[in-house]
Amino acid sequence: MIIGNDEKLLMIGDSITDCERARPIGESRFGGGTGKGYVAQVEALLHTRYPERNIRVVNMGISGNTVRDLKARWQTDVVELKPDWLSIMIGINDVWRQFDSPTIPEAHVYIEEYEATLDELVAATKPTVKGIVLMTPFYIEPNREDAMRATMDQYGAVVQQLAAKHGARFVDTQAAFDRVMRHLYPATLAWDRVHPVLSGHMTIAKAFLDEIGFEWD
Amino acid sequence: MIIGNDEKLLMIGDSITDCERARPIGESRFGGGTGKGYVAQVEALLHTRYPERNIRVVNMGISGNTVRDLKARWQTDVVELKPDWLSIMIGINDVWRQFDSPTIPEAHVYIEEYEATLDELVAATKPTVKGIVLMTPFYIEPNREDAMRATMDQYGAVVQQLAAKHGARFVDTQAAFDRVMRHLYPATLAWDRVHPVLSGHMTIAKAFLDEIGFEWD
Amino acid sequence: MIIGNDEKLLMIGDSITDCERARPIGESRFGGGTGKGYVAQVEALLHTRYPERNIRVVNMGISGNTVRDLKARWQTDVVELKPDWLSIMIGINDVWRQFDSPTIPEAHVYIEEYEATLDELVAATKPTVKGIVLMTPFYIEPNREDAMRATMDQYGAVVQQLAAKHGARFVDTQAAFDRVMRHLYPATLAWDRVHPVLSGHMTIAKAFLDEIGFEWD
Amino acid sequence: MIIGNDEKLLMIGDSITDCERARPIGESRFGGGTGKGYVAQVEALLHTRYPERNIRVVNMGISGNTVRDLKARWQTDVVELKPDWLSIMIGINDVWRQFDSPTIPEAHVYIEEYEATLDELVAATKPTVKGIVLMTPFYIEPNREDAMRATMDQYGAVVQQLAAKHGARFVDTQAAFDRVMRHLYPATLAWDRVHPVLSGHMTIAKAFLDEIGFEWD
Amino acid sequence: MIIGNDEKLLMIGDSITDCERARPIGESRFGGGTGKGYVAQVEALLHTRYPERNIRVVNMGISGNTVRDLKARWQTDVVELKPDWLSIMIGINDVWRQFDSPTIPEAHVYIEEYEATLDELVAATKPTVKGIVLMTPFYIEPNREDAMRATMDQYGAVVQQLAAKHGARFVDTQAAFDRVMRHLYPATLAWDRVHPVLSGHMTIAKAFLDEIGFEWD
Amino acid sequence: MIIGNDEKLLMIGDSITDCERARPIGESRFGGGTGKGYVAQVEALLHTRYPERNIRVVNMGISGNTVRDLKARWQTDVVELKPDWLSIMIGINDVWRQFDSPTIPEAHVYIEEYEATLDELVAATKPTVKGIVLMTPFYIEPNREDAMRATMDQYGAVVQQLAAKHGARFVDTQAAFDRVMRHLYPATLAWDRVHPVLSGHMTIAKAFLDEIGFEWD
Amino acid sequence: MIIGNDEKLLMIGDSITDCERARPIGESRFGGGTGKGYVAQVEALLHTRYPERNIRVVNMGISGNTVRDLKARWQTDVVELKPDWLSIMIGINDVWRQFDSPTIPEAHVYIEEYEATLDELVAATKPTVKGIVLMTPFYIEPNREDAMRATMDQYGAVVQQLAAKHGARFVDTQAAFDRVMRHLYPATLAWDRVHPVLSGHMTIAKAFLDEIGFEWD
Amino acid sequence: MIIGNDEKLLMIGDSITDCERARPIGESRFGGGTGKGYVAQVEALLHTRYPERNIRVVNMGISGNTVRDLKARWQTDVVELKPDWLSIMIGINDVWRQFDSPTIPEAHVYIEEYEATLDELVAATKPTVKGIVLMTPFYIEPNREDAMRATMDQYGAVVQQLAAKHGARFVDTQAAFDRVMRHLYPATLAWDRVHPVLSGHMTIAKAFLDEIGFEWD
Repeated sequence: MIIGNDEKLLMIGDSITDCERARPIGESRFGGGTGKGYVAQVEALLHTRYPERNIRVVNMGISGNTVRDLKARWQTDVVELKPDWLSIMIGINDVWRQFDSPTIPEAHVYIEEYEATLDELVAATKPTVKGIVLMTPFYIEPNREDAMRATMDQYGAVVQQLAAKHGARFVDTQAAFDRVMRHLYPATLAWDRVHPVLSGHMTIAKAFLDEIGFEWD
Repeated sequence: MIIGNDEKLLMIGDSITDCERARPIGESRFGGGTGKGYVAQVEALLHTRYPERNIRVVNMGISGNTVRDLKARWQTDVVELKPDWLSIMIGINDVWRQFDSPTIPEAHVYIEEYEATLDELVAATKPTVKGIVLMTPFYIEPNREDAMRATMDQYGAVVQQLAAKHGARFVDTQAAFDRVMRHLYPATLAWDRVHPVLSGHMTIAKAFLDEIGFEWD
Repeated sequence: MIIGNDEKLLMIGDSITDCERARPIGESRFGGGTGKGYVAQVEALLHTRYPERNIRVVNMGISGNTVRDLKARWQTDVVELKPDWLSIMIGINDVWRQFDSPTIPEAHVYIEEYEATLDELVAATKPTVKGIVLMTPFYIEPNREDAMRATMDQYGAVVQQLAAKHGARFVDTQAAFDRVMRHLYPATLAWDRVHPVLSGHMTIAKAFLDEIGFEWD
Repeated sequence: MIIGNDEKLLMIGDSITDCERARPIGESRFGGGTGKGYVAQVEALLHTRYPERNIRVVNMGISGNTVRDLKARWQTDVVELKPDWLSIMIGINDVWRQFDSPTIPEAHVYIEEYEATLDELVAATKPTVKGIVLMTPFYIEPNREDAMRATMDQYGAVVQQLAAKHGARFVDTQAAFDRVMRHLYPATLAWDRVHPVLSGHMTIAKAFLDEIGFEWD
Repeated sequence: MIIGNDEKLLMIGDSITDCERARPIGESRFGGGTGKGYVAQVEALLHTRYPERNIRVVNMGISGNTVRDLKARWQTDVVELKPDWLSIMIGINDVWRQFDSPTIPEAHVYIEEYEATLDELVAATKPTVKGIVLMTPFYIEPNREDAMRATMDQYGAVVQQLAAKHGARFVDTQAAFDRVMRHLYPATLAWDRVHPVLSGHMTIAKAFLDEIGFEWD
Repeated sequence: MIIGNDEKLLMIGDSITDCERARPIGESRFGGGTGKGYVAQVEALLHTRYPERNIRVVNMGISGNTVRDLKARWQTDVVELKPDWLSIMIGINDVWRQFDSPTIPEAHVYIEEYEATLDELVAATKPTVKGIVLMTPFYIEPNREDAMRATMDQYGAVVQQLAAKHGARFVDTQAAFDRVMRHLYPATLAWDRVHPVLSGHMTIAKAFLDEIGFEWD
Repeated sequence: MIIGNDEKLLMIGDSITDCERARPIGESRFGGGTGKGYVAQVEALLHTRYPERNIRVVNMGISGNTVRDLKARWQTDVVELKPDWLSIMIGINDVWRQFDSPTIPEAHVYIEEYEATLDELVAATKPTVKGIVLMTPFYIEPNREDAMRATMDQYGAVVQQLAAKHGARFVDTQAAFDRVMRHLYPATLAWDRVHPVLSGHMTIAKAFLDEIGFEWD
Repeated sequence: MIIGNDEKLLMIGDSITDCERARPIGESRFGGGTGKGYVAQVEALLHTRYPERNIRVVNMGISGNTVRDLKARWQTDVVELKPDWLSIMIGINDVWRQFDSPTIPEAHVYIEEYEATLDELVAATKPTVKGIVLMTPFYIEPNREDAMRATMDQYGAVVQQLAAKHGARFVDTQAAFDRVMRHLYPATLAWDRVHPVLSGHMTIAKAFLDEIGFEWD
């Protein structure tokens, strides 16, 4: 497993990451500071499996964020916290607003802006950390012809390309959900096909952990 | 993994199990019904890893319960729910009351009553289910000379003996915590050395899953 | 418009109908008693357009209901309230539970039970009222290949057949939503493809009003 | 219907308009942002009937406002939001304070100030929008000899004159309520003869929609 | 002043009387038990002016009550409390429901039932008390041609006739409000022309006190 | 009665005056703005008895205030509000802190500071108003030998002397309570011998009204 | 100190005893069960000074109780709890109601009933316990001529006589407060001369502890 | 007892001291301002035993504080309040964070910083007060081999050395708890071995009072 002794992992994103994390910094004594979602699950599995490594997990997700919002708070919420490892999962709101708020165009973040901004953030941060993990946004809808799913897949492809370009680690959360959706209808996993129940968060957590070399036994 | 398609796993216990589960039955649509502790983690890991098995997890823990309380509600909370698999983790309050409430003797459940009652419940239920998993109570205190830890270990030994006697599966949660405590001080894991943070719950969940044959990959 | 002077219209259903209506009877002085959904919109449009008719609208929806639940409360919630006109929109939960709660089979109401129960209720009530309006359940998902949409369409077909059989009026709410969805993605209309925003409720209200002969001018 | 594709309609006014709208801007994802009154009803009917037009409705009403208050926030709440269409319904509080607060003269906005201010706002804004809809204030009291009703009618006449002067569209909400009050006593429509129940809001919504060419079928 | 040493005055009625009185009996140590309306004002003026008489005031008003409701609770709320003096002010809701709830006829208490019921209650109670004070219902609307005001006046006339028939004391609260309304518009006195501000309650209190011989000096 | 048409009466003081008045100015539409104590009672009796005078009553009391606090807010809370008539009742806290907080000397306002400050405020304000009413502080304790009562009487004597010096009207609230206490034990009037029940507030209101020439009939 | 190993002390009374104790039995794990008043202070001092004795303290006070109320719940709240030692402090409300509620005679418990009832309770219970401690009621008013203080002293004398008659231990709480009041004004000790601040509770606790032989060192 | 007439005792520390004290200054009229812990108990015992001394007790504890936090607020929270006597109990959080938050090193206050800072504060303040009482931090864990207990003992030794160096009075709270723990298991005294129940607070209070010469009799 790639995260070493006393290293800090900072995970940033939107509401999927946030999940009621502590403010202003997403950590706390006696637990709960990393929220109730996949970040907390990652932390729990790391602490249980590697208690000797004393790994610090910090959740900096904020609900509703797009990549445009990440850029605006990058200095205070990433750079100044000096992580050793950084994970980024962003893009769901960038796409969703195009579909749930068609009358509010200023809330849409189109794919050019998405790619350019994410590219800029990764490029600037890569030299300062031991590693970056780029995670795709996802949509818990199995029909790839669905308009929003199709758009989300395009944003996911951008993430994959940027990971390759920058030598970042890559987690395909959409593929992870696709595997589960072969057996479960989306309504079992998420009220709105976006915010998963704990089982869905665990799907994300497992995909992340597999990428960083976590071993159950 | 021993739990098969469409089978129901019922997990009963005290506050460690309860963790704000749904009432009167600890399950619900769209998640959350199994609470926020190890039961929910077990469910999330099972659903993520084995989505095709459609496993039903039901949490019937109640905070503050001793084995005496389990007996009083066994008919409605276990028998009538017809589980395929049953896990029992009880005994912490049976012991704790002897140490935190020395002036209230009627709240103490001594080891003879503990053993006899648990024996009776397991014996009566064993024939009706596919399997029972007996989990020890635990105390997040590394000093085996500590009075309460020493007593808890005696109760844990009873659980181990009963598992052997009835051919039940056995999970040594105390041993699991002991492994973690080689690296972490108790205050990192639990405010009161009893109610763990999410990492501690994951330690329990992992011990349980390992016993039932869960495979990460 | 078919509802005459001083006549009472009772609308029954599930959460789409309920929408925070008054308890135990869904009406009240000074408004609000018919909830915040399509029933309230129907009432407001009838009162505005036909103030001289003094029409009484009563909302008897209850969130989460299936046709099985309607049957259980039919005597107190329909028969004893002696409506002149009755509308029924039920079936969404009958179907939804099959898809969001695959581990809880006792919550599923399959199509045979659905048809038999609805048939029985309509047959028993038809002679006591001036008219019954049967409304299809719906799913705000444009992909007819989607598993839940396909099932919902089967239930909708049952409603249409029963309307024909009993000479009841028929409202195809699914068709009404399909027309809107030619232009709007589901996420614009409903967080979960089931509970619509006010615009979606108005789509239902308009479909109902058109069937009963409402004239805007 | 005069509002075209992707155009924005901004509706401003007092508590009749406000109705718990979102702050600071009266719109939102997934509905509710335009409040619970006539603005929300207008939006719902437009979206249902003309889903292809993608019309944006924004509610900028604030409870308790007089025309003096509108002037103070005109720049931020109207001009900077760049509406295509603008509706204004103001004057109820200008009049009401003269009758419910006789000891507080600084809260009274007399007719000269009312006319001059509204004239100024309309004149300044007319060139920047595709159209303005001026709506009269109203009082749900059928007795035209009633002191407050008589005064409200004078303010309504000012609105009609300004509409003619500036070539704005004109909605006579008082006339719409008078038609309903031929059949319904005021207490049925509004607790205080000012804040209507949903049926009363629909009376306003219908009067507005009729003026802008809405067609039900 | 007619109320003597250590005598008990019980005042019953609807929301105008109730005003958040104590439950189940409307009195309490350290004040507040008689509510916040005219009953509390009567009590305060009696205690201030006649402290030596030790008069007991009990408020048994209940919001929303009609004379039909008074009859249903007369035994427990009047007879068993054994008052020396009894005041009754009822009828506003009997009339109001006819005007604000035209679709709910079972909530209307028409004048025949009103007269017969009040007559019966007064006749049965007169022999057991030192005196009864009958107070008219009122409507804070100066226009006697208004439909609800005209009806309220008819109910007030019934009260006056019953007072004469039974030799009860009579308080014309409508006349008291009419005197104030020569100078104040209804909106100054009551949000809804029914529930007065403190000044309106004092108008009722003064009318009552004048009838029972209260002297300021 | 000395307050004329359209004149404003401002009443300032401590918690006895405050009584949950509106902030920042103690008046409001539809009542309640003058609080729940003697100010509201004065207002209600003036409006009921002299509705034609359109008298404006404003409550500027603040709980816990001493004369030192009044001085600090005199400009904004009295001068800038331009009253025609001004009443001042202050001093209870100036004395009380000496007896309930013996260890906190900075909270004590001794009689020299009390007299000098009140003198200064009255002198500065007298020329700008039609009249000032000085009301004594009081203590609802009949035993004049009681240490706190004896001190309060000294402060009351200061008020009387200042009233004479400046030609202000004078209200002896202590004397008013003494008359009531000939018949009622203090515990009937006030939980703490300071904050009276409504009957005690009416005792203050009546003493004030008698001084300004109020006539009941 | 007279309370021995593993013995139970039950303290019963009114609001002075109650102080937010646990329900239905006034004890709890981890403290707080004995409330926030003198009972909790007695418990804390006993546990600190005599930790080896394992003394059980149970608070059964109920706010507002008179001796009449104690009698009504004696069986469940004293007898069935089988205390070794019993303290009773009752009578404040028996007296207070005569002074704060002169119009409510049914709430007064006069001295004959007080003496007879307390006599009966002590006589019946004496044989079943190791000892009874009778504590006088008190009034934090130094003036012995005060009407309520004078009455309270009579009730206190009854307690002293009954203690002598039955051979119970006797605590003169009034005398303890009198000693403090030589230096502190009542307002320092209690808002209402009845419910003391923590310092006043400690005065009671110390008087009790001195009687049972508590030694600080 | 060393605290004389009208002198002020200021007690500063962390959550053990704080205990819901008043803000911004930990004192208040009518009690409660010094919180619910040992400070309030000290105050209550001093007032009860030495009412004639009029001692002022002020609680300036703040939950979570380390000695680093004390230094940051020393000027406003100690110096400017001009105490005659000062007690300091700090260090629990300095140690605890090292054990409950191993991943957050910036929250750890190691022993060199602890000693230097406390030394500086005592040295600077000693000349301005009549006396300083230094109290050790404590850990309610009897096993001196326990890692956190062992560390806490080192910090306690620092306190003892500084007391000797500066001639301050010294209270060994750890020793006081050790005496109690000979008979009581830690869980009886504190949920988390840090925040004691009232009995544990009394153990601290007694240790403090014994050091300052308090005499029970």
